[in-house]
Amino acid sequence: MTTNVDWIAVDWGTTNLRAWVFDSAGQIVATLTSDRGMGVLECDAFEPALLALIAPYLADGQRTPVIACGMVGARQGWTEATYADVPCPPPAIDRATRAPANDPRIEVFILPGVSQNRPADVMRGEETQIGGFLASNPNFDGTLCLPGTHTKWVQISAGEIISFRTFMTGDLFAAIMGHTVLRHSAAKGQDLASFDCGVAEGLSRPEMLTARLFTLRAEGLLHGMTAVAASERLSGLLIGQELAGAKQYWLGTQVALIGGAALCERYARSLSTLGAKPELADGDTMVLAGLRAAQARLKTIGT
Amino acid sequence: MTTNVDWIAVDWGTTNLRAWVFDSAGQIVATLTSDRGMGVLECDAFEPALLALIAPYLADGQRTPVIACGMVGARQGWTEATYADVPCPPPAIDRATRAPANDPRIEVFILPGVSQNRPADVMRGEETQIGGFLASNPNFDGTLCLPGTHTKWVQISAGEIISFRTFMTGDLFAAIMGHTVLRHSAAKGQDLASFDCGVAEGLSRPEMLTARLFTLRAEGLLHGMTAVAASERLSGLLIGQELAGAKQYWLGTQVALIGGAALCERYARSLSTLGAKPELADGDTMVLAGLRAAQARLKTIGT
Repeated sequence: MTTNVDWIAVDWGTTNLRAWVFDSAGQIVATLTSDRGMGVLECDAFEPALLALIAPYLADGQRTPVIACGMVGARQGWTEATYADVPCPPPAIDRATRAPANDPRIEVFILPGVSQNRPADVMRGEETQIGGFLASNPNFDGTLCLPGTHTKWVQISAGEIISFRTFMTGDLFAAIMGHTVLRHSAAKGQDLASFDCGVAEGLSRPEMLTARLFTLRAEGLLHGMTAVAASERLSGLLIGQELAGAKQYWLGTQVALIGGAALCERYARSLSTLGAKPELADGDTMVLAGLRAAQARLKTIGT
Repeated sequence: MTTNVDWIAVDWGTTNLRAWVFDSAGQIVATLTSDRGMGVLECDAFEPALLALIAPYLADGQRTPVIACGMVGARQGWTEATYADVPCPPPAIDRATRAPANDPRIEVFILPGVSQNRPADVMRGEETQIGGFLASNPNFDGTLCLPGTHTKWVQISAGEIISFRTFMTGDLFAAIMGHTVLRHSAAKGQDLASFDCGVAEGLSRPEMLTARLFTLRAEGLLHGMTAVAASERLSGLLIGQELAGAKQYWLGTQVALIGGAALCERYARSLSTLGAKPELADGDTMVLAGLRAAQARLKTIGT
């Protein structure tokens, strides 16, 4: 079973660890997932967590390259990987940091993140999705938006990341839903009319955000706003506010969204009302394409 | 010890329960506090929580009036007290709701909250502080601001609450500090220069809020921003954003702040840079004055 393994791609974020095992023909022979994300691991727990997942695919006497991206390279991760500074292309394998592994069957490369000096900003993982996107769209010129816990808006030109800005929209949504008074008034669900209404509100008079949050609570108490309507209005408010702040990134330029379908469709829906016509690219496909591009380069430069 | 007790004032919020025991000469004979706030009590636990605090001051064969305000009258409280709708004076004892008490030694009145139809808004407890403030400032005309978990901006004219708006600033601050990525980068402390800088940022381009939150994280990672500076900048950002949204309440009008000294001084400091010169009133003193005003009225109307 293990003789044919060529390398292993790893996307290791805050909440999940995912691995793809490749054979020498470039085919995926296994797709593995675990909930051992960076957020729950002490620094000496990374190698055991990885081995628990991939050990069946390792062979004695053979050192298999493992190429990883994401929060595994954060200060609280396995080992801190360097950042590449903008402007730069999505950083390649030659700038990877080796993670200290005791098992002689693996050699672990953690791809760099990307940083920006002013305004201070960082990404870890998204740069690999961007690399994957540019691998199949080498002439893309415009903005990539990667919605998520920390949504990234990224200006791309001539194959380089020129500048970017992170909006803490998803993180804020979860904190408000779970840890403010709105936990009594809001519950996840789908109500696109309420979402659209929130987007329109968030785009206009963004200084009213913290008042509008309490209005959702009061609307529930006084006028029977449903919990689903409240959460959808909240989602819209935060995304609308973000779109107002990110205007320089989407106005009059080509935009592509990279991420999960459900969230990307919300951004696309909102952007289309503003005249932008974003294309969509699947986040998992892009991260894997980025890791493959890194591995192709590894073969070229050798280890 | 109990023969001389005339009535008991109660401020019962989400996190605390406080009681003041008055004798027939109008003097406070005991000040009592407990952590049995509304947030931790089921509906049948309110009477035991109250009795645990005040029982030593009750006399057999005598029914002592207990006058309460705050979240004890919320839907999740002891019993839901009515709301008075704006425009209205701070609601008086004749609109109080009787709480169901089994102990014959107490008669419990919960003062009404205040509601507003559009934009939907509610308060519970602040109206009693407002009543206390107006008892000693009957000719006040302008804006009362009550900073806190849910900061209230209240337009007062001719002794009435004309309109108000709640900003979820304190609740949001706590949720961001405790439950977003900033929990790794921010810790409470005092750094007024960072606070002022945050206020200035929050006042300008409020649509950048969610991006600026992440900038605090990145400033810590890349440029060594301290955890205290990050929390102070966050506090300033949220208060600055609130002041931008509440402009119609403080611009060109008399403003008084009611609340705890530390938080009120932050609001006063920020407002003064905008040309407003708010006076400060102590929140505890005002709630007690409001409860006393209600009790005086109770004597007039009888029970």
